[in-house]
Amino acid sequence: MERANRPLAGVTVLDFGQVYQGPYASLLMAQAGADVIKIEPPQGEPLRRRAPPGKSTTFPIAMLNSNKRAITLNLKHERGRALLFRMAKKGDVLLENFAPGVMDRLGVGWSVLREINPRLIYASGSGYGLSGPDRDNLAMDLTIQAVSGLIAATGFADGPPVKAGPAVVDFLSGIHLYAAVVTALFERAETGKGRLVEVAMQEAAYATLTSSLEAYWQSGKVPPRTGNASHGRVPINVYPTNDGYIAMNLAVEEHWHSLLKAMGREDLRDDPRFNSPAARLAHRGETDALIAAWTKTLGKMEIFAAAKRHRIPLAPVRDVNEVMHDPGMHERGFLAEIEHDEIGRVTVPTSPLRFHGADPVPLVPSPKLGQHNAEIYGGWLGLSQDEIAALKSDAVI
Amino acid sequence: MERANRPLAGVTVLDFGQVYQGPYASLLMAQAGADVIKIEPPQGEPLRRRAPPGKSTTFPIAMLNSNKRAITLNLKHERGRALLFRMAKKGDVLLENFAPGVMDRLGVGWSVLREINPRLIYASGSGYGLSGPDRDNLAMDLTIQAVSGLIAATGFADGPPVKAGPAVVDFLSGIHLYAAVVTALFERAETGKGRLVEVAMQEAAYATLTSSLEAYWQSGKVPPRTGNASHGRVPINVYPTNDGYIAMNLAVEEHWHSLLKAMGREDLRDDPRFNSPAARLAHRGETDALIAAWTKTLGKMEIFAAAKRHRIPLAPVRDVNEVMHDPGMHERGFLAEIEHDEIGRVTVPTSPLRFHGADPVPLVPSPKLGQHNAEIYGGWLGLSQDEIAALKSDAVI
Repeated sequence: MERANRPLAGVTVLDFGQVYQGPYASLLMAQAGADVIKIEPPQGEPLRRRAPPGKSTTFPIAMLNSNKRAITLNLKHERGRALLFRMAKKGDVLLENFAPGVMDRLGVGWSVLREINPRLIYASGSGYGLSGPDRDNLAMDLTIQAVSGLIAATGFADGPPVKAGPAVVDFLSGIHLYAAVVTALFERAETGKGRLVEVAMQEAAYATLTSSLEAYWQSGKVPPRTGNASHGRVPINVYPTNDGYIAMNLAVEEHWHSLLKAMGREDLRDDPRFNSPAARLAHRGETDALIAAWTKTLGKMEIFAAAKRHRIPLAPVRDVNEVMHDPGMHERGFLAEIEHDEIGRVTVPTSPLRFHGADPVPLVPSPKLGQHNAEIYGGWLGLSQDEIAALKSDAVI
Repeated sequence: MERANRPLAGVTVLDFGQVYQGPYASLLMAQAGADVIKIEPPQGEPLRRRAPPGKSTTFPIAMLNSNKRAITLNLKHERGRALLFRMAKKGDVLLENFAPGVMDRLGVGWSVLREINPRLIYASGSGYGLSGPDRDNLAMDLTIQAVSGLIAATGFADGPPVKAGPAVVDFLSGIHLYAAVVTALFERAETGKGRLVEVAMQEAAYATLTSSLEAYWQSGKVPPRTGNASHGRVPINVYPTNDGYIAMNLAVEEHWHSLLKAMGREDLRDDPRFNSPAARLAHRGETDALIAAWTKTLGKMEIFAAAKRHRIPLAPVRDVNEVMHDPGMHERGFLAEIEHDEIGRVTVPTSPLRFHGADPVPLVPSPKLGQHNAEIYGGWLGLSQDEIAALKSDAVI
C-alpha cells in the first residue's frame, strides 16, 4: 500500500490523554495524519463530565479531539489490561498524562509494555516529572504557573501577582509532549527501537521566563512586575483606543520613526526627550502619554491598519470572539466551522504545524464516548461481536 | 560509523534562529543530539547587542544556545549566498524566524534551496504565517499576545487587561517549530523527501484559550477576566501566606475533603455552605475567606509540604530566584550551573524533552559570535585558510 502523503501516515497512537495537555499533543498527531485511538475509562475522560444529559461532547472535547477515534477501556479490570497488551503490540505510540506511577500501579507501565513491544514509544506528561522530590505533587495548569514563576511575573508592580488567563502551561507541555514523541519516532525509524519519553510541565514552562531570569541574574534582585511595560525599553506597552486597546512593542529606532510618521508628529524626531532609547526611558511617562493621546482618538483596527502601512509592530488587544472569528486564521484554514452532531456548530482548530505540499486531513468531528469500540475491538483487534458484547456487559470496556 | 545513542544523532541543522523563538527550537535539537550550526550576520543576532564591550555573550544567548556551534554569514553578499548553497547541500534542516519573505528576497528561500537539496527540511517561524491578510505585519511576543486574546483574558475584571509576564508566545511557537521540523524529519526517514514547514505564532497560541473560548461559545458573551479565580469552580485561586502566596486548584470533592483535613476543619465537611461545588460557588467569598484565614498563618513552603502529605493540588507562587534554584529541577539535571568564559557563572536549562536511556549530551556553553568559522568553513565545507581569510576581509562572513 502506498504511503499517504501526510507526515505521520501509518503511525498508530494509543492515546490516554485527558483534559488539555495529552489531547492537544494527540490532536496534532491526528492532524499530521496519524491514526489516533482515544482510550477513555467507561465513564469518559474528565472533560466529558459537563456534557449535556445523554451526550458525551463538550466544547473542549470537540475542539481538541477532531480526527481521533474513541474507545472505552477499564484498566482496573484484568481483561481490560489484557486488551491493552494486545493493542500495545500493534501500536506505535502510547501517550498518557496521568499522575506519575498510575500506569505502573495498574501493571501497564513502560517496563511491562516494552517487553510486549520493543518498538513502542511510551510518552508520559506530568507536572514535575517522573523523578525528583516533587514527582508526586498533584499538578494543574494554575499550580504549575505558580511554581514555575509565571504568576509572580504577571501583573502590575503595585498589585498582586496574577496568573496568565489562558492555560498556557497545559498547552506548552502538550506541544512539548508531541515533540518528544515525534523525536522518538524519528529515532525509531533509524534504529528500530522505542523509548520512554517524558515531559514535565514545570520544565516546559521554564524558558518562558528568560527575560526575568536575565534581569535577576544581572542585578541579583528579583525584578518587580511591570504590567504591560518593559524594564528597559520604551515604548513597549498597552495603550487605550476609543474602542479598546492596542499593544505596541518598538524594537529599533526605525520603528519609532515610523510611529512618529503615523502619528503625524515627525516634528518630534529630534526632540531630546524622545530621540534615543535612553531619552525615552528617561521620559517614560511623557512618551507613553504622547502615544496614548494619539491612540485614544482612534479605533484599534484603524491603528492596526496604519501599523501595517507604516511597518510598526503593534496589534489590537482582541477578545475571544474576535480571535475565534479572525479572518486570517479562517482564510489560512487553521480555523474551521464544523457541525458536530451532538453540540451543533462549533469552531475548531486544525494544527499550527503546517506541512506544505502534504494532503490535508479532512476534518472529522470529535468522537463520542466509545463510538469506535466495534470498529477498533472488532475490525482492528479482530474480536467477535459476541466477545465485544461480553466485554461491554462485564464493564471491561 | 555507529549511530550515537541520541534521538537526533546525525542531523545537521542550519540555524538562522534569532532572539527566543528560533533559538529555543534549535536548542532542543542540539540537546537531542543534532549538530546545530548557528548562523548569524557578521554583527551577530539581536540578542548579542547588549553584550559587554568586546564580548558577544548575554544571559539569554548563554541560556538558549548551549551545544551549538556558531558561524557568521552575510547573506546580502553574493559569495555569502553561495556559501549557504554549499551548506544547504550538506544540511538536513534549515530553520529561520525572519519576517516572511526575507529569505526569498535574498534569493535563498525554500523554492531555491529545495532545488539544491530535495531532502532539506526548511522551517519558517513567523507571527501570522506565510499566507493570509496579516502575513506582513510585524510581530513580537507582546503583539501576538494581544491579537491572540491572551492579554484580554489576563488580569482582574475591574482592572485593565495585562500581558502574561513571560514571553509565552515566543516559546510556544518555538517548541511548535521544533515539533514541525522533527515531524518532517520522521517523514523524510520514510520517504526520502524534505518539506517546507511553518508555524505562525498566532496559531500556536490559539488553543491556550480553550476555557475562554468555551465560555464564549456557551453564553455568546465574552467572559469577564477573573484574576486568579475561575468562573465555575471554587476554590480555585491564589491565597496570601505569611511570606507570599500559594495557588490552589481543587478539581474534585476529594481535594476539598483533603483541604479541610489539612486545615483541621473537618467539622465543616457537612456545612451546607461548603459541602458541594454548587454550595461553594454560591458562597465564593466565604470559601475564599475561610481558606485565606488558614493560609495567612503559614509559610508557603509549609503549606506546600502539607499539600504533599494530604494530596491537595496547590503550589507556592515562586519568584525567578526560587525557580532558578529549584532543587527538583537541578536534581533531575534539567537545570545546570555552568561557567561561561565570557560572562561567568550562569544557570542554563537542558531540555524539557527527556529521552530515557539515551546518552546525555555533555553541556557545552554557548558559542561566541563566529567562534566556529574555521571549523565549519574549513573542516566541514573544506575551504582553505586563505579562502576563509578572504571571506572575512571581504565581509562575507
